Amino acid sequence: MQFPSYPLLQKVNDPADLRRLSRAELTQLSAELRAYVIDSVSKTGGHLSSNLGTVELTVALHAVFNTPHDRLVWDVGHQTYPHKILTGRRDRMPTLRQLGGLSGFPQRAESPYDTFGTAHSSTSISAALGMALAARQKGEDRHAVAIIGDGAMSAGMAFEALNNAGVQQDCKLLVVLNDNDMSISPPVGALNRYLAQLMSGQFYAAAKDLGKSVLKPLPPLFELAKRLEEQAKGMVVPATLFEKFGFNYVGPIDGHDLDSLIPTLENLKHLKGPQFLHVVTKKGQGYKLAEADPVAYHGPGKFDPAVGLQKPATPPKQTFTQVFGQWLCDQAAADIRLVGITPAMREGSGMVEFEKRFPGRYHDVGIAEQHAVTFAAGLACEGLKPVVAIYSTFLQRAYDQLIHDVALQNLPVVFALDRAGLVGADGATHAGAYDIPFLRCIPQVSVACPADEAECRQLLSTAYAQNHPVAVRYPRGSGVGTVPGNDLQTLPFGKGALRREGQRIAILAFGTLLYPALQAAEALNATVVNMRWAKPLDTELLLEVAARHEALVTIEEGAVMGGAGSAVLEALQAAGLPRPVLQLGLRDEFIEHGDPAKLLQLQGLDAAGIEQSVRARFPAP
Amino acid sequence: MQFPSYPLLQKVNDPADLRRLSRAELTQLSAELRAYVIDSVSKTGGHLSSNLGTVELTVALHAVFNTPHDRLVWDVGHQTYPHKILTGRRDRMPTLRQLGGLSGFPQRAESPYDTFGTAHSSTSISAALGMALAARQKGEDRHAVAIIGDGAMSAGMAFEALNNAGVQQDCKLLVVLNDNDMSISPPVGALNRYLAQLMSGQFYAAAKDLGKSVLKPLPPLFELAKRLEEQAKGMVVPATLFEKFGFNYVGPIDGHDLDSLIPTLENLKHLKGPQFLHVVTKKGQGYKLAEADPVAYHGPGKFDPAVGLQKPATPPKQTFTQVFGQWLCDQAAADIRLVGITPAMREGSGMVEFEKRFPGRYHDVGIAEQHAVTFAAGLACEGLKPVVAIYSTFLQRAYDQLIHDVALQNLPVVFALDRAGLVGADGATHAGAYDIPFLRCIPQVSVACPADEAECRQLLSTAYAQNHPVAVRYPRGSGVGTVPGNDLQTLPFGKGALRREGQRIAILAFGTLLYPALQAAEALNATVVNMRWAKPLDTELLLEVAARHEALVTIEEGAVMGGAGSAVLEALQAAGLPRPVLQLGLRDEFIEHGDPAKLLQLQGLDAAGIEQSVRARFPAP
Repeated sequence: MQFPSYPLLQKVNDPADLRRLSRAELTQLSAELRAYVIDSVSKTGGHLSSNLGTVELTVALHAVFNTPHDRLVWDVGHQTYPHKILTGRRDRMPTLRQLGGLSGFPQRAESPYDTFGTAHSSTSISAALGMALAARQKGEDRHAVAIIGDGAMSAGMAFEALNNAGVQQDCKLLVVLNDNDMSISPPVGALNRYLAQLMSGQFYAAAKDLGKSVLKPLPPLFELAKRLEEQAKGMVVPATLFEKFGFNYVGPIDGHDLDSLIPTLENLKHLKGPQFLHVVTKKGQGYKLAEADPVAYHGPGKFDPAVGLQKPATPPKQTFTQVFGQWLCDQAAADIRLVGITPAMREGSGMVEFEKRFPGRYHDVGIAEQHAVTFAAGLACEGLKPVVAIYSTFLQRAYDQLIHDVALQNLPVVFALDRAGLVGADGATHAGAYDIPFLRCIPQVSVACPADEAECRQLLSTAYAQNHPVAVRYPRGSGVGTVPGNDLQTLPFGKGALRREGQRIAILAFGTLLYPALQAAEALNATVVNMRWAKPLDTELLLEVAARHEALVTIEEGAVMGGAGSAVLEALQAAGLPRPVLQLGLRDEFIEHGDPAKLLQLQGLDAAGIEQSVRARFPAP
Repeated sequence: MQFPSYPLLQKVNDPADLRRLSRAELTQLSAELRAYVIDSVSKTGGHLSSNLGTVELTVALHAVFNTPHDRLVWDVGHQTYPHKILTGRRDRMPTLRQLGGLSGFPQRAESPYDTFGTAHSSTSISAALGMALAARQKGEDRHAVAIIGDGAMSAGMAFEALNNAGVQQDCKLLVVLNDNDMSISPPVGALNRYLAQLMSGQFYAAAKDLGKSVLKPLPPLFELAKRLEEQAKGMVVPATLFEKFGFNYVGPIDGHDLDSLIPTLENLKHLKGPQFLHVVTKKGQGYKLAEADPVAYHGPGKFDPAVGLQKPATPPKQTFTQVFGQWLCDQAAADIRLVGITPAMREGSGMVEFEKRFPGRYHDVGIAEQHAVTFAAGLACEGLKPVVAIYSTFLQRAYDQLIHDVALQNLPVVFALDRAGLVGADGATHAGAYDIPFLRCIPQVSVACPADEAECRQLLSTAYAQNHPVAVRYPRGSGVGTVPGNDLQTLPFGKGALRREGQRIAILAFGTLLYPALQAAEALNATVVNMRWAKPLDTELLLEVAARHEALVTIEEGAVMGGAGSAVLEALQAAGLPRPVLQLGLRDEFIEHGDPAKLLQLQGLDAAGIEQSVRARFPAP
């Protein structure tokens, strides 16, 4: 492949090449890298704004640190395209987020430069501290660097890690706060306000002077004197939050200026103990359209860089997310007790309109799933009706809170679980594959699995009408396209429905795979039941169907182990009615990124795969 | 019941009675309350040190706030005996932590004064913020108060809650930091060091002056002026960590002095926005023996208050915790790569000796389960072999980290899951009932279930020998008393063993219920298999046994839904060998506190219960 307009970039096949370049060349490299990122993402889709923000920081880190011997841990990791391009993966960028291609996140299996797989936020300081303390224990001279955004910094586990790291005075840990004042939703919370404060007024000036002083390596005695002086002054020098946690704080500095970044990093490298560098960057930097609307360019599809994102000619199909967003507004209009909660996923969870219409009942708590769920429990104790909109994969972050604070107290909290099942391009880290097993085992929790858009709305209404915790799980994207009603009609709680009457074999579907199951059933002349609820199971319907069929098939877009199919096995055994059952669902393996339809096909969960599996297991007599 | 030596306490049947007392009488009430706590706990066992630390704080909170209209949320909640005694439950203290008696933690079902059920740490600020914002939304004039210890404050979710609360300037939220400088293990981490700093030197003096100023209610204009002044000064006034989060910080004040507590709380009640009161108390206060050794008196059994805790005449049976502690030391001596990690449970997890012998390889990360697990992942990336000792119920706090950071990257981390199954006196909040279902559904994770002490050691060695994540789950307390070896011998990975050859029925046991199963099998003449691994399942052994028996029984001390028994059902179906199976285990309900043996009996999991269930389901022909 040719890169006629990337003369320097095409010569950088790994960071060692980069480290041979002059400062002026590094500046040019950054410009080429930025152009290459825009060009790549415009052709494949993917994350854009965040990657344009990290171009210079990536160049500076690889210039200063001896990667991969020194460890870079990128928090979340969707901002690592520049890192991937500079670490031998430039030519594979056209395969990004496609089956068998580069992951959209760092992956240990992909490159030795990807020292830690990330994707969920706020793990980087913990992981980098582990690496730094391992180096200390093994007597190895290496640095560990965590690069974390201001949004990710608000999550509890980042603080847990700071708290632990701040007392490790003899480790080589650097935390780089990439402060771009915008996670996916706009920033919220006290920490963001505080960071804004750091960047303004006299405090900023004082901090800048402090930043300068670090350019001269401090002799140990001087450090001691400085510390004694601080104590003598009774700590009246403004100390940042991060210094209170035991870090040496430097910044804020301009994260797009290599002449600030490189010397500061060089000097920090030689200081002892946990270091904290506050870098200010701009999402979308260098691409006017993304700078102007970083939210729109957070994760765009393919586009023409000269023109920018265009409204599609035909409106896309309604997504489950949109169905939820509309239902939430309608339910809120009908019931003043409704409160909507999101952990920093206003756009992703379809709550933009809800916030506009009901600002007093909308709570974006930041990237803070644990708090989101217990906060909801507190609201529910006072007679309000919280709806927590959360991706299935992120509910894993609040599992204990769901058990201990919501389920145990039997509080009426609705969990709207978006992205349940496979998620396509984001891959294994984001798969909502485990929610049925991990929710089903918890007493007093119900789990609904709508088969289509219309039913999704009905089951949300049904969940909301209950007086106990209920999760409604629905997949990413669109379903078959049924049109939801305008009302708030409920369905019978815990009840499924017969969808097709066939012979010999009955397929019990939990969720959207009902539709390929119906297709397969045509060929098989099988009965099909829309089970709708993984818990409580419609045992009455199950036993009635089991009694008049030779064999059963269960199907769900979720882990087979412990899933809804296992609930069917348990119920059959409890009723003393053992029947041959084929369980279809996600196999016991992590499933990588790729086209969602293709991934389902590979799991044998399209109509042809279902038909084939059923025929193989229950051959016609 | 008579309280001859508690003349005031016996007149206080609810906090309204307390609010009628004079300041002098409240001081006497506190003395009586302290004596009553010592007397009660010495007769029932339970938590002591923490409750002696909260006597005056409890009196002051009920004196100042209009409970239960105002909401008190006690973090963790094991320090609420004074609260229980003052809120109508004095006479029920002899039933504490016993079946049908008072819970050792706050419970909504127990009293309207228990506004939020707690037990796991660090939930109180989230819950109280929910209550405060609910009051705001409903236009109700009430306060919400979270009382949280310094240990609990180090957990991430407390910071998530502070971050969210700090921007809610119009809510009536008070956070009381009960700083006693000792969670169950000694304090660790930067936050604790920082709190110690707050209490010393000039800063303390300055803070004390600040504390005094709050004694005069501030007119709103004055507040505004103060804020403007701070901005003008460029924030050179020393601001505490908590002020950076948007709270008005007052303290530290003496938490055993009603003359400090009551006026300060009175004044804080009238200030707007989130308030933060830093109170210093002493665990064990007022009982010399507990003051001298608060760890020993953290959760004592019954004792004579005049004499104090005595060494038992006969040494108690070795616990699983001790078996783990010994194994950890021996394995660490044999392998320099081993690192031991605990989230603030050094004593509870049996790591006291390990810390002494291997201080450089011991990491107490504080109450920070999320960080503990990802930190372990970081260590494992560098070739070390982390062992995370964690209670089953607390692993729920790190579920996402286990999936996303450990399992997905297939890192060799050993999870030593203590307190798996029922836990007795601590009740439903602490039950380790869900780990088999929530671990089993995750690819690449194995789960071992030792049947006794000797096997526990062998399976820990086996887990350690693997190159992927393995959890070993074992119950609280002792088993049948088998004596572990001194070596580090492993068992075959993923393999069970036939224990008794019988006829017609085979019982497949996962874990310590193997022994009551063996007893029941004598009466039933049933086959018994020690399955040892919930995942991977020993399918070969299972199918061999299934083929030559009419019916199977599975048994585990864990949730039946999705548990090891369901793994058996799945495997039988996958092999096309449906058999009648009876699944025994914990029912789908939360199980309250009580004597462990009695609780198992109530679940039908003692030998008699097993026999009865088997006969009922599979009557002799």
